[in-house]
Amino acid sequence: MSIPVPPVPSFPPAELTLSSVAGLRAAGVRAGIKASGTPDVALLVADVPVAAAALFTQNHFAAAPVNVSRAHLQASGGKVRAVVVNSGNANACTGAQGDRDALEMCERVAAALACPVEQVLVCSTGVIGVKLPMDKVRTGIEAAVAALSSELEAGRRFLHGIMTTDAYPKEACARAGEAVVAGVCKGAGMIQPNMATMLAFLATDMDLSAAQLQGALPGITSRSFNAVHVDTHTSTNDTFIALATGKRPATASWAGQLETVAHRLSWLIARDGEGATKVTTIRVMGAASDAAAKRIATLVATSALVRTALYGNDPNWGRFTSQVGNSPDVRNAHALRCVLQGMEVFREGEPTAFDRAAASRAMAREDVLLELQLQDGAGEAVVLTSDLGYRYVQVNAEYTT
Amino acid sequence: MSIPVPPVPSFPPAELTLSSVAGLRAAGVRAGIKASGTPDVALLVADVPVAAAALFTQNHFAAAPVNVSRAHLQASGGKVRAVVVNSGNANACTGAQGDRDALEMCERVAAALACPVEQVLVCSTGVIGVKLPMDKVRTGIEAAVAALSSELEAGRRFLHGIMTTDAYPKEACARAGEAVVAGVCKGAGMIQPNMATMLAFLATDMDLSAAQLQGALPGITSRSFNAVHVDTHTSTNDTFIALATGKRPATASWAGQLETVAHRLSWLIARDGEGATKVTTIRVMGAASDAAAKRIATLVATSALVRTALYGNDPNWGRFTSQVGNSPDVRNAHALRCVLQGMEVFREGEPTAFDRAAASRAMAREDVLLELQLQDGAGEAVVLTSDLGYRYVQVNAEYTT
Repeated sequence: MSIPVPPVPSFPPAELTLSSVAGLRAAGVRAGIKASGTPDVALLVADVPVAAAALFTQNHFAAAPVNVSRAHLQASGGKVRAVVVNSGNANACTGAQGDRDALEMCERVAAALACPVEQVLVCSTGVIGVKLPMDKVRTGIEAAVAALSSELEAGRRFLHGIMTTDAYPKEACARAGEAVVAGVCKGAGMIQPNMATMLAFLATDMDLSAAQLQGALPGITSRSFNAVHVDTHTSTNDTFIALATGKRPATASWAGQLETVAHRLSWLIARDGEGATKVTTIRVMGAASDAAAKRIATLVATSALVRTALYGNDPNWGRFTSQVGNSPDVRNAHALRCVLQGMEVFREGEPTAFDRAAASRAMAREDVLLELQLQDGAGEAVVLTSDLGYRYVQVNAEYTT
Repeated sequence: MSIPVPPVPSFPPAELTLSSVAGLRAAGVRAGIKASGTPDVALLVADVPVAAAALFTQNHFAAAPVNVSRAHLQASGGKVRAVVVNSGNANACTGAQGDRDALEMCERVAAALACPVEQVLVCSTGVIGVKLPMDKVRTGIEAAVAALSSELEAGRRFLHGIMTTDAYPKEACARAGEAVVAGVCKGAGMIQPNMATMLAFLATDMDLSAAQLQGALPGITSRSFNAVHVDTHTSTNDTFIALATGKRPATASWAGQLETVAHRLSWLIARDGEGATKVTTIRVMGAASDAAAKRIATLVATSALVRTALYGNDPNWGRFTSQVGNSPDVRNAHALRCVLQGMEVFREGEPTAFDRAAASRAMAREDVLLELQLQDGAGEAVVLTSDLGYRYVQVNAEYTT
């Protein structure tokens, strides 16, 4: 069967990347782990130990690198010299050998930098259930250490070294006075059998403590990476690491600046959902609490019926509102207003006499906004979702081993 | 684009149907509500008031007939003479006029039977947000009253009168000594824009009180209709009604006999999922509690990644087990065993060396069993799910108005 592949979107490269952050160097090299021959070992190194914080997958089957990084972050007290990443193999569901391999990756970087092993974090992404090809990983780490540079291109190579099935590189940046915030990530749902993982790296040269970073990360993540629904699977390797090198004074609004960059990265992930043609922002307002709003928005965002309607540019108020009606968090459902791309389509329990053709045309855009307004309180939330089309089925059903 | 339509399965007609139950008569007539010209007004009548119980949708946007039936069941003390159903229009999101129309349907049946209006229940299924064509409904009710019969064919016409987008009629029956249990239902996910609803009707001639029926219904439903996941949308009109005419002595195992019939009906609904090619039974064992097991099974059953893997006959242990790993209800994930069609594919945190080709062949069947065995306790649950293929996207994205 011939399934049309949606055109791959392209985005202009960010002006700054991780290696633009004062005090950081980066590298990305080809070690032969990925059959594609693209870079697959990436290394980010700080000149001195810098403040670090991270959030990891909550999946019970957390991969070996997740367990090692979590332990190292704790043991180092949030002081980190390096992050080493390989793509092409997630080192997940690999037993005790997987634990030893993840640790060895840190040990080799630590030896090269002459720093304590607990100051090195490690991430892996790719196929699960297969042991790491450690000969290739060792060679890759050696080459990456030799290639470290603070040039823009070195940061770009780091980004390419973390990618797996991504259709395009994902990066974002912001300037805050003298300081910069830069971020890169990878992730596009779980394409290919057993390929997984969202990895995100955010760095700034502001002077922030590990405690400040760690305190801000849950909120930032809740409104960015954890507000994206491509296929609802949290993977074995999901990791979000933030570094602050302390070379510039922190701004008053540093957390917001980090969040802006993280939000753009999460939009790029949603846009890269398997076969997605757009990103839909589902904004719930007037819920009983922010948490209630998030649960309602998530219920709508994860519905296969909603996501196929988005793909088909179908202004299907019934699917949108009936999912709100399914939420135990809704008190007064009769008050619900549903506004699609600025057009009110549902009010007081009934559809409005809106222009369906115009609404459908308005949905055929790369950014769609679905607003769900309740009157239960002041709770708000935003969730991003990708649409679900033929290509999603193809990549998830037919690319079998 | 040309999407292959999976062959429509056919099932032998049940030996007995609702009109086979002693004390019941049925009818199904063409009233012109459905453009297809198939029967769209159905009527089930008991000779005398009989014990009745029902479960209704929990959706906040419950349709007018749901609200009327819920009130009538309560006012009548669970004594019912008739159930009137129309298909083609759900009378949902239709405001105050919708309430009046649903009530009038009951009033017209009550007048014809010379019974109190609260002894008549009403169900509607079809498009939402459109007012009922009451002239056609009135003519249909009149014709249905005139056509009432206890013959098998009359029951069959009732069944056809409740169908909307169903690919095949759904019926099941059982004999329990002298008594019979018969059931029919409609429902196949939410195909077509704004088409909704699962309706199920179960009847027995056993001597059971309304309180007995109502007491048993939640458990029966939890293990049948509420254990089916086609697209996770609960609709505005979902209704399950059970009647007991009291003509035969109740068996000791009556609740189990009702459940057997209800379970078969729910399997038929899962098999009719949009574009589904099979029914997958997800059995979770060894969870901390039955409720925990149900939540874990539901998490797996509702994953689009799992459902596309089922469609592709992909023995994707990573997707199955990572969803278990996502559940906060799991205590000891390392103990998880995953058995697919009798083949152990995952144990102690790692995939087994199973034969992928053989496992894939074993998945290409109409009934697939995925067993997830934990060691957290004695909790068990079974959930049925349909697979997700190209046809699902087509019917949900492209059949726009």
